Amino acid sequence: MSNKIRIAIAGYGNLGRGVESALARSPDMELVGVFTRRDPGKLVLQNSQVPVHSMDQISNFVNSVDVLILCGGSKADLPEQGPELAKLFNTVDSFDTHAKVPDYFAAVDASARAGQRVCVIAVGWDPGLFSINRLYGEAILPEGATYTFWGKGLSQGHSDAIRRIPGVAGAVQYTIPSPEAIEKVRSGSRPALSTREKHMRECFVVLEAGADANLVREAIVTMPDYFADYDTTVNFISAHDLARDHAEMPHGGFVIRSGTTGTSSTQIMEFGLKLHSNPEFTSSVLVAYARAAYRLKQQGDVGAKSVFDIAPGLLSPKGAAELRKELL
Amino acid sequence: MSNKIRIAIAGYGNLGRGVESALARSPDMELVGVFTRRDPGKLVLQNSQVPVHSMDQISNFVNSVDVLILCGGSKADLPEQGPELAKLFNTVDSFDTHAKVPDYFAAVDASARAGQRVCVIAVGWDPGLFSINRLYGEAILPEGATYTFWGKGLSQGHSDAIRRIPGVAGAVQYTIPSPEAIEKVRSGSRPALSTREKHMRECFVVLEAGADANLVREAIVTMPDYFADYDTTVNFISAHDLARDHAEMPHGGFVIRSGTTGTSSTQIMEFGLKLHSNPEFTSSVLVAYARAAYRLKQQGDVGAKSVFDIAPGLLSPKGAAELRKELL
Repeated sequence: MSNKIRIAIAGYGNLGRGVESALARSPDMELVGVFTRRDPGKLVLQNSQVPVHSMDQISNFVNSVDVLILCGGSKADLPEQGPELAKLFNTVDSFDTHAKVPDYFAAVDASARAGQRVCVIAVGWDPGLFSINRLYGEAILPEGATYTFWGKGLSQGHSDAIRRIPGVAGAVQYTIPSPEAIEKVRSGSRPALSTREKHMRECFVVLEAGADANLVREAIVTMPDYFADYDTTVNFISAHDLARDHAEMPHGGFVIRSGTTGTSSTQIMEFGLKLHSNPEFTSSVLVAYARAAYRLKQQGDVGAKSVFDIAPGLLSPKGAAELRKELL
Repeated sequence: MSNKIRIAIAGYGNLGRGVESALARSPDMELVGVFTRRDPGKLVLQNSQVPVHSMDQISNFVNSVDVLILCGGSKADLPEQGPELAKLFNTVDSFDTHAKVPDYFAAVDASARAGQRVCVIAVGWDPGLFSINRLYGEAILPEGATYTFWGKGLSQGHSDAIRRIPGVAGAVQYTIPSPEAIEKVRSGSRPALSTREKHMRECFVVLEAGADANLVREAIVTMPDYFADYDTTVNFISAHDLARDHAEMPHGGFVIRSGTTGTSSTQIMEFGLKLHSNPEFTSSVLVAYARAAYRLKQQGDVGAKSVFDIAPGLLSPKGAAELRKELL
């Protein structure tokens, strides 16, 4: 019998596939199954030989899964799945609707306590690693300001918003942080930056036959919340070029804390990510936190957790003495 | 009676003064005293009205100090003070002799357990925040390489080494990371870099009257361990210019993890610091970890800890729900 941490995946989209890949690089863990709401017989896994089950059967696997990684979306899937599955499994998820975090945490926490499980919510890079860096920045440099920049990266939400405009056959949207704004922040000058000064938005749009480009452009750049407050560039391209040049999902960004110590010493802390694949990176973070969830449960802990509650050492397969010797 | 965390400082050099400043920005903590091996009557504090005591008297203060921040050096002070004071106080220190961390941890741990105390060792930025970022990088991107660059910054150890050369009246040494090496790493190419390719060393030296500049230069650039493996520039300047231009203690650097996910996606994580005052920043980190030490002790924990054992949330004065709402 293996001593590996037994991981299952709930939901096999981009994130689920990323978790499958990340597990293949984690010798202390093994994928034991995938759960889907689709027809399990028709789901083809990338490179694993594990069984695929219907989500309806998941309660039969309570004793054969150490941690269930929830790979569904924050809008439709997690608000229901998270609290439901927290009764049965230790879980990790990437819930990312910032405004709803308190309610979601409370719901998952109640279930996790009832089921004596450890459930880590809102794991990934933002929320996730960026959140941790915002916290470190503020705790270490209490006098200062924190700046978060996103991009250059593909925003799924903004791309979807464009696709819903009549006349649009396809679209992607890139969020681009302003290099000037970043340089100002890095200089320690602690500028007040408007939304427009921090990020630009660049759109690549495929029109339906006969659609009016000017109307579509106008609908995009004036869209409240999504585009109206930004400088937005709209490029019309062919379906062929969209498929050829914009199929990848890069992303990234920066969290910068600019603070003062002593009488007037400027101190800058910066954390940045440059991601070739946003979902694969998020999945890699999920897998590391699955290890932590397992260990916390082994230690007798229960309840919902955020990344703020997880000591760094719990993420590594190495033991504490090894970590101190090699990485401290 | 105040509910603030009562902090005392052991050792009043650059770090001790930095802790004093950082505490003034931490409304949940208060400085209650400074301990010194010098004559307490002659020690003038920067801006605090707290009593100064002799280190010999420190055992009388066991019940009036929640956390003692050890501000001595890693060579002469901490190896003895750390284990000794861990019997009496919750402590935080900036022990930074990498090779001796396992022994030091073991000695402090034994004392802390005997005295039922929480003692956090090796806190600061390297070891410290850089260590945490090395760990996050390796745990999240197991296939990859980690690069640590230091500088541009003043290295106290290298400056001291130059000052010991006959004919040298004064000196500072700056460690400068190679911009080309950093760019290669950021590109995701994962280069193998020699010591010489990663950092350069720049020295500003004041000669004693009659000293031979060429002999001094030769003694510096050929010095084993310190300079022989690097491209080293030696500039001779006047005592006046040394005092005017090189009195500050800037430092910083980068930890970069370059990894692969999926089949071939390059992912780059980078943490960087640009510090106007190295000791003031280290002190600020010490103060945040003093808060964590206090909380761990309140929770019933005991023993030596490293930064790897401390959940991020413990560093912040804010509560868990507030952190999730504001920073997650």
